[in-house]
Amino acid sequence: MNNTADNYSPTLSNAGQAPSVTVSVQNSSNNTCSAEIAAERPLTIYINKQETVTLLTLGTHPELLALGYLWNQGLFDNLHNIRSVCVDWNKGSASIQTSEPLTDNNSVINHQAGPARVSTGANPVISRTEISTLLERISDCNQLYRRIGGVHGCAIFHGAKLVYFVEDIGRHNATDIVAGYMWLNGIYGGDKKFYATGRLTSEIVLKLSRMGIPTAISRSSITHLGLELAQELGITLIGRAKGRQFVVYNGSITIPDATKDGN
Amino acid sequence: MNNTADNYSPTLSNAGQAPSVTVSVQNSSNNTCSAEIAAERPLTIYINKQETVTLLTLGTHPELLALGYLWNQGLFDNLHNIRSVCVDWNKGSASIQTSEPLTDNNSVINHQAGPARVSTGANPVISRTEISTLLERISDCNQLYRRIGGVHGCAIFHGAKLVYFVEDIGRHNATDIVAGYMWLNGIYGGDKKFYATGRLTSEIVLKLSRMGIPTAISRSSITHLGLELAQELGITLIGRAKGRQFVVYNGSITIPDATKDGN
Repeated sequence: MNNTADNYSPTLSNAGQAPSVTVSVQNSSNNTCSAEIAAERPLTIYINKQETVTLLTLGTHPELLALGYLWNQGLFDNLHNIRSVCVDWNKGSASIQTSEPLTDNNSVINHQAGPARVSTGANPVISRTEISTLLERISDCNQLYRRIGGVHGCAIFHGAKLVYFVEDIGRHNATDIVAGYMWLNGIYGGDKKFYATGRLTSEIVLKLSRMGIPTAISRSSITHLGLELAQELGITLIGRAKGRQFVVYNGSITIPDATKDGN
Repeated sequence: MNNTADNYSPTLSNAGQAPSVTVSVQNSSNNTCSAEIAAERPLTIYINKQETVTLLTLGTHPELLALGYLWNQGLFDNLHNIRSVCVDWNKGSASIQTSEPLTDNNSVINHQAGPARVSTGANPVISRTEISTLLERISDCNQLYRRIGGVHGCAIFHGAKLVYFVEDIGRHNATDIVAGYMWLNGIYGGDKKFYATGRLTSEIVLKLSRMGIPTAISRSSITHLGLELAQELGITLIGRAKGRQFVVYNGSITIPDATKDGN
């Protein structure tokens, strides 16, 4: 994983859309009223005019979504390879222009880099206090979910500091947007924690391996394949994290004594 | 949509697996205990040895999942075209053998039949009583979700009668398994209601069009593209249905008077 330490940025469009649409509905008492629902926009990613994939997204961060998708799929490692990302909602397209023509080593079809182990030594140990603090900080973030439902939120934390939070209609998209933000801003994953409202399945754990993040906390549950991959890749996996409760599925936590509790 | 009225069935393996795995975890009080988590198994569908797609599933109904996926994708219409479905978990494969070699009209790659309108006239009208009865019946079904979380449930109802209910790790899989059950058993969709714990997004509404089901009820929310498709395809869409509350996003309901309330 090569995050850029320089200030290079591809040319990006700025085509973020509103996340919701207000529609007229009938409630269970037979009254007509208005309701806000999640937008769902097809976004087809083209790499040098070659169609690659269609994602269904809220559409608030289409450039970051496209970048993060490409990175998490292992299609690109170096941000300098991307000249521009241009989103056109009339065509439902995100057009990626690369700096150099693609070579065979950089084929966009069926290229899957094997997942890399994230922790070089033992898994990172997280304290109960850190988890509680993180859950407290996150509880104000998911405003969109509270207002309209039907979206998943993802975040990265550095210590107790929230670095980035985003919501999208799927767990995968939200994770890819976080990845796009990290890639674009040269953010190192090794000292971050990933938080998700959605489930930690195998696909999310594989994305975390690309993002180099060794600790993941979910409000929801995990799957067995997600757990097996986390064990193999050295990722601490915490699920059902809500309020002061959580379950550690992989790795370990410390319960500080009274002196340490202020950490 | 050609459901078979005869008793033809392809030869099917019987490779359903247990939906969960018990693992050892650490809880937030630092005690080690055991927890049941959802299985997640990759299942690659081959059609006459040609790789088509890999789905991630609980693995409880792999044959129905493969059948329903093929049907919902518009790859096949007639069950007689399928000679056998053979699932081998050692290879993570569901091998479909067709009765005849595939023709160009029946290509397995990128074949997408356009969605068909489900209701020929006005959308079906559902009564508030029917919705309440259905929600009451469904409330006992999602035993797996209650035990382990991390799964979505789907059902079809005929009047107040529950015809079929299934849970899988994704909304899409659960819907495809229901479709496989309908296709295999020649069940007509036009007089059924579809229930889902998960969101009614564009992809689920498109599947309902294939299944010919004109009424969908979700415990969760809907997306704007899901709503637009439902309007175009004549599908009544009810969301946020829980207890006695719900929201009608497309179509209409009747609130019966006291006399009619016993329907």
